Amino acid sequence: MTISIGIINEKTKKASEGRVALTPQIIKSILGRFEGKVDFLVETDSGVSSYNYNEEYKEVGARVVSQDEALGADILLLVNTPDQGIIKSIKKGALVVSFFNSTKNQGIVEELKKENFQAVDINNLPRKLSNAQSMDALTSQSSIAGYKAVITAAAEFSKIFPMLTTAAGTIRPTSVLVLGAGIAGLQAIATAKRLGAAVTAFDVRPEAKEEVLSLGARFLDLFSYISDEEKVILSSINRKQGAGGLARKLTPEELAIQRKATDKAVGSFDILITTAQVPGSSPPEFVSMQGVQNMKSGSVIVDMAASDKGGNIEGSKPNQIVVIKDVKIIGAPDLASEVAAASSALLAKNFMDIALHFIKETEDELVVNIDSEDELAKSMVITLESA
Amino acid sequence: MTISIGIINEKTKKASEGRVALTPQIIKSILGRFEGKVDFLVETDSGVSSYNYNEEYKEVGARVVSQDEALGADILLLVNTPDQGIIKSIKKGALVVSFFNSTKNQGIVEELKKENFQAVDINNLPRKLSNAQSMDALTSQSSIAGYKAVITAAAEFSKIFPMLTTAAGTIRPTSVLVLGAGIAGLQAIATAKRLGAAVTAFDVRPEAKEEVLSLGARFLDLFSYISDEEKVILSSINRKQGAGGLARKLTPEELAIQRKATDKAVGSFDILITTAQVPGSSPPEFVSMQGVQNMKSGSVIVDMAASDKGGNIEGSKPNQIVVIKDVKIIGAPDLASEVAAASSALLAKNFMDIALHFIKETEDELVVNIDSEDELAKSMVITLESA
Repeated sequence: MTISIGIINEKTKKASEGRVALTPQIIKSILGRFEGKVDFLVETDSGVSSYNYNEEYKEVGARVVSQDEALGADILLLVNTPDQGIIKSIKKGALVVSFFNSTKNQGIVEELKKENFQAVDINNLPRKLSNAQSMDALTSQSSIAGYKAVITAAAEFSKIFPMLTTAAGTIRPTSVLVLGAGIAGLQAIATAKRLGAAVTAFDVRPEAKEEVLSLGARFLDLFSYISDEEKVILSSINRKQGAGGLARKLTPEELAIQRKATDKAVGSFDILITTAQVPGSSPPEFVSMQGVQNMKSGSVIVDMAASDKGGNIEGSKPNQIVVIKDVKIIGAPDLASEVAAASSALLAKNFMDIALHFIKETEDELVVNIDSEDELAKSMVITLESA
Repeated sequence: MTISIGIINEKTKKASEGRVALTPQIIKSILGRFEGKVDFLVETDSGVSSYNYNEEYKEVGARVVSQDEALGADILLLVNTPDQGIIKSIKKGALVVSFFNSTKNQGIVEELKKENFQAVDINNLPRKLSNAQSMDALTSQSSIAGYKAVITAAAEFSKIFPMLTTAAGTIRPTSVLVLGAGIAGLQAIATAKRLGAAVTAFDVRPEAKEEVLSLGARFLDLFSYISDEEKVILSSINRKQGAGGLARKLTPEELAIQRKATDKAVGSFDILITTAQVPGSSPPEFVSMQGVQNMKSGSVIVDMAASDKGGNIEGSKPNQIVVIKDVKIIGAPDLASEVAAASSALLAKNFMDIALHFIKETEDELVVNIDSEDELAKSMVITLESA
């Protein structure tokens, strides 16, 4: 008995998706480790956008098949939340690993239970557990997206990032503001610093300040832009941190004060990168149209939170460049996908480590094995009765 | 009597041109220095692509005029070699500063003399003279182009430049090869290093090796790719350096051996940047179609020498991306123009310093004054009878 693991061509459902859940390299290592016990079903052209070709999958021993065949696997690894069509076609009872974002999207849990799936939600990964870290696809993808945000800004910008001293004079370094100093924000800060920019950052979480400073960036003093009364309200945010070390959702009043301060602050910067994505919710709008217009002509904004429900910047549109008074607003929610070869290499390792956690090896075979007492299973397997 | 200095909207003649010869900032400083003695004539929308607006020119005291009026100035500063139409419209006897590339294009000198111009060729700048350095537009524009070559490559590449270590494994740094270690090449090396890439470079000039190593890059050992006989021929290049410290033109045999070695060498790199532009001549073709195909899928080539007469890469096309077996060849001869705000800031200083060198201030006025014994005039004023 072999167990089968399937991946699909994600592009057929989402045109902007370039990533793939497993690379030939990872498949090769798993086939070497569990010879004869596992079978990989790879939909045709799954890896083309990440430069992983059908021939390479075949060479390492995977089978390149139709989407229907891949969806018939015992274990299915999906980069994007499956839609109704995909869910209906997955083999009943399969172990399905994806970003289900189930805390925000309770409906999907019922649906998955109905089909008798064992569904593993990567969004629920207990990131602080040490054995979960190699599974942390949110971190790996955010890191890469943070890098790409800076490259995208630099590519669209009409000046250069580093200081340049010539006999004809000096060009000053570009000033970059990063709003949100999570994984993506920190990587954006580091990349912009590397390129020689003068970098400033802000995050409502008080411990973020130290991290920002440790990367050699300045921390934005939003308080200098608002009244004393507003300061009292804004400073109370710092004492009301959300669960898991993440920033909690701001109240409308708090957000309005922050926006007012940010609108003024952004006028001093050439480049603005915003990173406050909130899966399943509308992202907080940090900068209004007024703030955009406060920026100098030629400024570039990369809004990593741009979505159909809005973004961190008023007027940003996902996967579009909107130009307001010669300020470019790049709506860039899928940056990891634009660096698909790198993103897929890390994602494949993350996915495979998650799958392996829920597989047990016996003498003859591999079997799906979910221990309802296991910390990872309790957090991530959203179809467990106890979940 | 005021002297007038004109600039035109270069975009009307060359759509890909974003730069402008003078910025409001430079005009302001000159008007402050020579109050009442100089008049600036700026064609409408000259600076729009570099974020320098008509209103800003007016604010500092320039006049925003039609192209015909601007071409009527006593001194004309042109980013691009003027074509027949422009030459016919310039005021007879004017001082015209541009890139005439007159050593390769003798015909233009006769034409300029016929119109009685005093023509200053920036290509002939004696770069080693200390008072010429602030006029060195070739250096300032090449520096910026070298930076932009790396940003362009990074933006088109499907991986990331720096090493990235995560719990799921390590992404190795991208390997970059820069062919040609002149101004543009050195800036490309420095920028790629900054972004965290592993950088290797090559140049036929022996003194380039030290410069490459001093930037922390490796120097490519082309000799390891060729036969002993070929080594003898290739090593003789190093003893036959061209005039002015620049690489001389290779013989067909030498170029063939270098190409053979380079074709093999490029297979080990993810990114290839070639910088060997030769104004007025066909650029040397360093890499053949075979070399392109030796590169890995997903590799990116930036050919800064791409032109209608060919480039450093077989098959490259100016201002196009050609994809050969999943290797992107970006033909990028106008990279400085893609960072027009930065390029124009330096260019304006270069142009103005050249113009000032050929202007004398009297008590009442400024006059064009070319001293035929002056080193700069002897090199650059191509319409001088002695030239």
